[in-house]
Amino acid sequence: MDETLKSLKEILGQVADLEASVAVLEWDQQTYMPPGGADGRSMALSTVSRLAHESFIDDRVGELLSALEPGLASLDPDSDEARLVRVTRRQYDKARKVPAQFVAEFRRVTSLSFQTWQEARVRSNFALFRPHLERVVEMRRQYAGFFAPYDSVYDPPLDDHEPGMKTAELKAIFEALRPRQVKLIQAIAEKPPVDDSLLRLNYDEAKQWDFGMEVAKSFGYDLSRGREDRSAHPFTTGFNTGDVRITTRLDRNYLPEGMFGTFHETGHALYDQGLPQRLERTPIARSLSYAFHESQSRTWENLVGRSRPFWKHYYPRLQAYFPEQLGSVDLDTFYRAVNRVVPSFIRTEADEATYNLHIMLRLDLEMAFLEGRLAVADLPEAWASGMREYLGITPPDDKVGVLQDVHWSTGAVGYFPTYALGNLLAAQLWEKAQSDIPDLSKQIERGEFRDLLAWQRENVHQHGGKYEPMELIVKATGTPLTPEPYLRYLWAKYGEIYGL
Amino acid sequence: MDETLKSLKEILGQVADLEASVAVLEWDQQTYMPPGGADGRSMALSTVSRLAHESFIDDRVGELLSALEPGLASLDPDSDEARLVRVTRRQYDKARKVPAQFVAEFRRVTSLSFQTWQEARVRSNFALFRPHLERVVEMRRQYAGFFAPYDSVYDPPLDDHEPGMKTAELKAIFEALRPRQVKLIQAIAEKPPVDDSLLRLNYDEAKQWDFGMEVAKSFGYDLSRGREDRSAHPFTTGFNTGDVRITTRLDRNYLPEGMFGTFHETGHALYDQGLPQRLERTPIARSLSYAFHESQSRTWENLVGRSRPFWKHYYPRLQAYFPEQLGSVDLDTFYRAVNRVVPSFIRTEADEATYNLHIMLRLDLEMAFLEGRLAVADLPEAWASGMREYLGITPPDDKVGVLQDVHWSTGAVGYFPTYALGNLLAAQLWEKAQSDIPDLSKQIERGEFRDLLAWQRENVHQHGGKYEPMELIVKATGTPLTPEPYLRYLWAKYGEIYGL
Repeated sequence: MDETLKSLKEILGQVADLEASVAVLEWDQQTYMPPGGADGRSMALSTVSRLAHESFIDDRVGELLSALEPGLASLDPDSDEARLVRVTRRQYDKARKVPAQFVAEFRRVTSLSFQTWQEARVRSNFALFRPHLERVVEMRRQYAGFFAPYDSVYDPPLDDHEPGMKTAELKAIFEALRPRQVKLIQAIAEKPPVDDSLLRLNYDEAKQWDFGMEVAKSFGYDLSRGREDRSAHPFTTGFNTGDVRITTRLDRNYLPEGMFGTFHETGHALYDQGLPQRLERTPIARSLSYAFHESQSRTWENLVGRSRPFWKHYYPRLQAYFPEQLGSVDLDTFYRAVNRVVPSFIRTEADEATYNLHIMLRLDLEMAFLEGRLAVADLPEAWASGMREYLGITPPDDKVGVLQDVHWSTGAVGYFPTYALGNLLAAQLWEKAQSDIPDLSKQIERGEFRDLLAWQRENVHQHGGKYEPMELIVKATGTPLTPEPYLRYLWAKYGEIYGL
Repeated sequence: MDETLKSLKEILGQVADLEASVAVLEWDQQTYMPPGGADGRSMALSTVSRLAHESFIDDRVGELLSALEPGLASLDPDSDEARLVRVTRRQYDKARKVPAQFVAEFRRVTSLSFQTWQEARVRSNFALFRPHLERVVEMRRQYAGFFAPYDSVYDPPLDDHEPGMKTAELKAIFEALRPRQVKLIQAIAEKPPVDDSLLRLNYDEAKQWDFGMEVAKSFGYDLSRGREDRSAHPFTTGFNTGDVRITTRLDRNYLPEGMFGTFHETGHALYDQGLPQRLERTPIARSLSYAFHESQSRTWENLVGRSRPFWKHYYPRLQAYFPEQLGSVDLDTFYRAVNRVVPSFIRTEADEATYNLHIMLRLDLEMAFLEGRLAVADLPEAWASGMREYLGITPPDDKVGVLQDVHWSTGAVGYFPTYALGNLLAAQLWEKAQSDIPDLSKQIERGEFRDLLAWQRENVHQHGGKYEPMELIVKATGTPLTPEPYLRYLWAKYGEIYGL
């Protein structure tokens, strides 16, 4: 078994090296690459990612897995070896079900669709994008077909993001969540609005950067194994546990953009830096799911970074960076401003209370077009009517409506719900962390985050991708995923702020 | 033929994509990678470069070449197609002669040797490095053996850098050059020394950067297809003609370091940006040799950048950047300072007149140890005695002596002479450019470089790697490589400065 496992790990290591190279090429593309490099880069990316895929779906991988599987019975099923074989088998079988020709065609279609979306969005012209999205939807349905039979046509794309999760489970959770989250927003809407104009003054970008990095370091982001750069769209990328990078986008006239963006990406980066080195260069040396990754970023952005204890410690520091803008603003006013709830058109700018409703709208729509209940041509109207239903507002055009997000243009269907799931997971993990670290709030008030990070390392990070997400949440908290902690958190927090 | 050529180009394109990816990984390693990324990066680099090598030496490439070769007779021998097949065949046959196991072992040995050299250099401890260098030398001789029979054991490593060039030719050129270059230095030594302390004041780094980039742009460096970053050792790298980057190292207390470094790297970058797009992703979409590449960097660094006409235009600009340091220094004093000749220990800091002697010393030594006439253990003494002979000075320790250069530690033997050849090529091309552009000096005095760059594009850059270096110098200048133009240039320039 040892030799066979070694052979398998060698191939998987090569795949991981190629994937890490793709990630470096992409990081560079979004940070420093001059415009002239685009064509050459897209060819290099296509070659290297194709080789990664081809190396992974090679017959030899299947043979080695088959040779290893009979021996698994004698292993601890939760051992690294047993889990590595299981997860690799799962990913291998999935990847082998998709014909190489489809992969190539999908890459071509989505590359074109992404380019057109960029233009369509700027021009707020859905008609331009429509034929491309129709083709993407068609191919996504075709993709689901490779995994038939399934309970829902939405199962295969969901499984790509949340391994093992079913659409029925997702719907049940969202249905329990929706009415109570809508009720919260209605309750808030009846209260006097909060003024956040103090966040929209002129904030020097270099100082924003410095404050963000000061906080990131205090959270535990290790800069000997990471760095921050600027990019048009903030993201986190990890090439290995020794090199996990974040990017940020700063807005001189809107402080939260860069600040909470940096907290958010730092949360992602803490996860990737906490992945176990012993699993490096294997398919389980990564997060188990998109939602779990999001839960870590949301924890640091919101549960920590938008909390009163955090600002008790950090507001004086922020005032020291910006005495002119904030010197005469008291903590409570500032705290209320960064937690203002207001229905808005753009998902990425939404507050914690309204955010999930943006997601539910998208989930409704992508399930509907995947199931064939909604024609792509009717999307803009369905979008607008959903916005009215969930948030009570109507987008003035498609740019701030159906064209706002990049995801569908790149073929990513089944991605959106992971944002909402991430919020729920974050709250459920948070309740457990609070009970395991009784003085957590006090620690945060003192600017101490070591125990919290250690708790995450222990309960989430160290497991890498060994488990399925719905397994790990039970392992970490003792209960299956439920929206209750999240609702408790929202009601408590906004109850206090808005006096509900 | 068309289909066969297309198949060949597809494989070569994939190899080029992998090599470009290696170059991006290396660029990042030297500019932005956090220290923690080193281990993972070295594995990714090893995998991707191995795949590039394996794809290139695949049997299929040999088959396609064999299928194409009979058809060459009917093609213009200088056509892209004919040259592509010829150059690919040459590189393929060379690469196939070296066993994969040797390649892997050599990579392992030199990686270790490089690491040890870094430490040995810091500690000025040659004994530490010696066993590693012995192994490198042994493997380099073994490498030469794969290409037996040869006239000189130095031929194979030289051919890796200057395709088609023989050691005998190289020696003949250097022997013609040596006595007259030594004589020049002796003549200068009898004159009063030049003071360059004005270059060693405190020069703000941001302003150094800005001045360097102002000049780089005026030379013709296209920043929509390039960029500058900082690194410990300056270099130029090109991923494709649309993305050619330079790096610089600035010394706050020594102006020439960053300034001439930037001019130098810009010269390299202008070459890579001028390679023909139609050859992209083939083995001839690159410079034909190391010496030719160096000739372009030396042209912009020295023949332009250290010339009187250049400074007539740019000195007032530089004074405007540094009024405090240079405001009261006249042009002639400045010009003499940046052209000061003085024997020194470190090659990379040597002036134009002494530089080649540093190279000749290294060539003597590497030929001697490759031919078995000199034991590695005796290198430090041989180095010191060579320095005394050529430059009349004795290094105080090995750090500024035999341990100063990285090359041997990485296995690069046959590389050093290309620096000297680059100087000779630069001067020979320069004489031709001057006769083709009669008012070249006047143009430079006006800060106009367009005609010069166009001349380089036409006579050097556009040919990529289609020709062998000794072919192209004839094509471009009408004469084989000769040290005469270089000697004429040196004697004229320093004759004027030092009143010889």
